[in-house]
Amino acid sequence: MLQNRPVILLVRPQMGENIGAAARAMLNFGLTELRLVAPRDGWPSKPAEDMAAGALEKITVDVFPDFASATADIHYLFALTARRRELEKPSMTPHDAAQESALRLNAGQKAAFVFGSERAGLDNDEIAPCHAVVHIPVNPDFWSLNIAQSVLLMCYEFGKHAGLTIPAGSLTEPAPQEKFEELFTRLTKELESGMFFQTENLKPTMLRNIRTMLTRGQWTDQEIRTFQGIISALVGKKEAEKKKSR
Amino acid sequence: MLQNRPVILLVRPQMGENIGAAARAMLNFGLTELRLVAPRDGWPSKPAEDMAAGALEKITVDVFPDFASATADIHYLFALTARRRELEKPSMTPHDAAQESALRLNAGQKAAFVFGSERAGLDNDEIAPCHAVVHIPVNPDFWSLNIAQSVLLMCYEFGKHAGLTIPAGSLTEPAPQEKFEELFTRLTKELESGMFFQTENLKPTMLRNIRTMLTRGQWTDQEIRTFQGIISALVGKKEAEKKKSR
Repeated sequence: MLQNRPVILLVRPQMGENIGAAARAMLNFGLTELRLVAPRDGWPSKPAEDMAAGALEKITVDVFPDFASATADIHYLFALTARRRELEKPSMTPHDAAQESALRLNAGQKAAFVFGSERAGLDNDEIAPCHAVVHIPVNPDFWSLNIAQSVLLMCYEFGKHAGLTIPAGSLTEPAPQEKFEELFTRLTKELESGMFFQTENLKPTMLRNIRTMLTRGQWTDQEIRTFQGIISALVGKKEAEKKKSR
Repeated sequence: MLQNRPVILLVRPQMGENIGAAARAMLNFGLTELRLVAPRDGWPSKPAEDMAAGALEKITVDVFPDFASATADIHYLFALTARRRELEKPSMTPHDAAQESALRLNAGQKAAFVFGSERAGLDNDEIAPCHAVVHIPVNPDFWSLNIAQSVLLMCYEFGKHAGLTIPAGSLTEPAPQEKFEELFTRLTKELESGMFFQTENLKPTMLRNIRTMLTRGQWTDQEIRTFQGIISALVGKKEAEKKKSR
């Protein structure tokens, strides 16, 4: 599991709401270092706090006057851009960039994902010092992603390397095979006495199909007991009906 | 490339804003079939339209009174839930679920990703008919994702199977090797005449290091010409200084 996490750098962000949503998305995936270059409406920001759902109290936020000071201590910069530029840079998907960042962090380097303003993204002078450009593959006919959504996707991809896991929970334990065999043997007997098999010829195939069908559910002990109860109830009903009709 | 796309099903969604943001996220990744079960504030919705940024006009939205009618024609249902339940179901990450859905769609089956209400998610009676449960791995100390963000992440993962691509652009063409050799030969000559190499002993190693360093940039033709110009300027300056000091 990685100890270090990448920095998220927002360059000239305009709306506090988006900064707050970005902060929330960061913390959702374990990132805790946010840097802002010249936020339009200043900092701190009430709209950011409202959108962050408490995340701003749990991450660090630093404000810088320009790109150079915000990136001075960073070894590897990933520029997130919507449009492909003329600049000659390695181009990556978020998946590849997350992997590259994890390798860098693991080697003790500091890495940052850089996002431009809502209106215009990053300009060429900001992309030039970056080491790679990251493009999110989208529907070419409807490609505009909100900045906080781009941050979310990048953080989500990084999260795959951050040792985040689904809470363990208990792995389903299928019943031991003998319980299933008991059930199957009994069912076969009941089906025989109920004249289910029209010909002895087809019987092996039909039994195999039934076994396959019932195995697929990977029933637990309890579920096998339930099915035994269902058989009893069905057989009992038939027996009861037989008695009645006599 | 897949022709079919999964359905996004929102069960009892509360805020129109979230429905709109979900629609936008869907279209960003090429999904176009949205179903709503009993949206709290009715449908259509002004807040949804405002948030959808035009997406609602390009996707189909159908409203159903209950879960059963909304899922009647679906073969494979994925339930997105934040919490792990006691129910015995295969549990998947969004990545695995996207892959499974692509396989199903490819086989001509209809698949849907199912999301519960903002307040309470899906209840157990809605999860029971689903074939798999999808958990997004998050920071356990800050795990709450907005419903539209969950839809975004799921659609993004599906998009990896939908043949979405980064616009092609031109692959950088490094200069042919002979151009690089010309440059390197000239640089070596200039360094020799500038007394750069302190000992003949170390010269091969130093040259190798310089070659490695300069190769790493994968320079284009134009960039090599630029560097030739830089050498000329530096040499010229030195020559000029020599003349001046004479």
